[in-house]
Amino acid sequence: MRDSDRVVPHFQEQLATLKERLLVMGGLAEERVRAIMEALVERDLSLVERVQAGDEPLNQLHIEIDDRCFKLLALHQPMAADLRAIVSAVKINTDLERVGDLAVNIAEAAQRYATHPPVKKLIDIPTMGTIAQTMLRDALDAYVRRDTPLAHAVLNADDQLDALKTQVFRDLLTYMLKDPATVEPALDLILISRHLERIGDHATNIAEDVIFMVSAQDVRHHPPAHERA
Amino acid sequence: MRDSDRVVPHFQEQLATLKERLLVMGGLAEERVRAIMEALVERDLSLVERVQAGDEPLNQLHIEIDDRCFKLLALHQPMAADLRAIVSAVKINTDLERVGDLAVNIAEAAQRYATHPPVKKLIDIPTMGTIAQTMLRDALDAYVRRDTPLAHAVLNADDQLDALKTQVFRDLLTYMLKDPATVEPALDLILISRHLERIGDHATNIAEDVIFMVSAQDVRHHPPAHERA
Repeated sequence: MRDSDRVVPHFQEQLATLKERLLVMGGLAEERVRAIMEALVERDLSLVERVQAGDEPLNQLHIEIDDRCFKLLALHQPMAADLRAIVSAVKINTDLERVGDLAVNIAEAAQRYATHPPVKKLIDIPTMGTIAQTMLRDALDAYVRRDTPLAHAVLNADDQLDALKTQVFRDLLTYMLKDPATVEPALDLILISRHLERIGDHATNIAEDVIFMVSAQDVRHHPPAHERA
Repeated sequence: MRDSDRVVPHFQEQLATLKERLLVMGGLAEERVRAIMEALVERDLSLVERVQAGDEPLNQLHIEIDDRCFKLLALHQPMAADLRAIVSAVKINTDLERVGDLAVNIAEAAQRYATHPPVKKLIDIPTMGTIAQTMLRDALDAYVRRDTPLAHAVLNADDQLDALKTQVFRDLLTYMLKDPATVEPALDLILISRHLERIGDHATNIAEDVIFMVSAQDVRHHPPAHERA
């Protein structure tokens, strides 16, 4: 039995709920990325607008999860692994909320993009979207299962994403230099690829938190203060 | 006397040190933004390289401050206002580390930019840099002094930054459409303005944390669990 269980019996149950809610939030964030990529490819302006207007459930979960973390810290005073899991949840929560914001940023660029003829058939950017979604899902699974190898896989996927971003930049620059009519839409695609890169960065942050959480130094494993004196 | 003081005498001292270290980190982050803007305006490639290579002190502080937060949480089990101050420190620490990363991103674009003839005399972008630096400084001062009005001033400054970003985008687009030779350098300036906008977003996050920290709901003001039963 852990320290935290001795103090308040339902701690582990509430920690499990916290993790479940983070998974729900991750699923919402991932779905927003999926939806906005579909809207971009299909030039579906009504879907773009739904994504723009649809950040509220994620924002609500952000507040709820922050609150759960505070209550767990304040009421149960968890130690060691549990403390690290909760502080990681605070950070992951922030990362997921920003992913929702980035979906809105992509939506703004996608809306402008749809007012121009397409620059080219989109291939690399939808691939970036798919990689970013997988990274998000894997990073959260790694958190819940304390799965360090999966967290490392997320870090590797980020290299793919960066390589694609560079490729997209070069391709679109070629179009822009050849044909001024492509300058505006190509610029929006470049911005979209940067937003997707940042979504990958947030998944990377989560993966790094998981690695730290699982492999933290002993210096943080102290008994509760009231058991020491 | 607060709960946390009763448990371990030096808690308030250590919390004060944590805040000092956050201020040091904020100063470093701000200096990196200042330096890279000088390097951009002066087309000083050796300064660009120093900024690119100079993220290590900030990364070290990031680890140190994270560690201080964990130790304070684990050893002192702070309640209420102190708990919120420490959890805010965890978040602020992450924001400041990302500001350092963004200075590196700006450096990459500034390096490419210096290989082209200047598109125009830079006015709005250096102004954005100055606003972003001020926002960072004010947000951290607001944290240390628990100064909610100053935190609100940071949120207002972010609107100025967003307006400038939109202005910069329009201006540079005009150059790009008129003269294909400006496409590459103007694109880098647009990316730089986006990075500066993100630095402002991090300052905004810090300010929002301060507002939450100072005005948190009573639900989080519980006595320590071991004093309840």
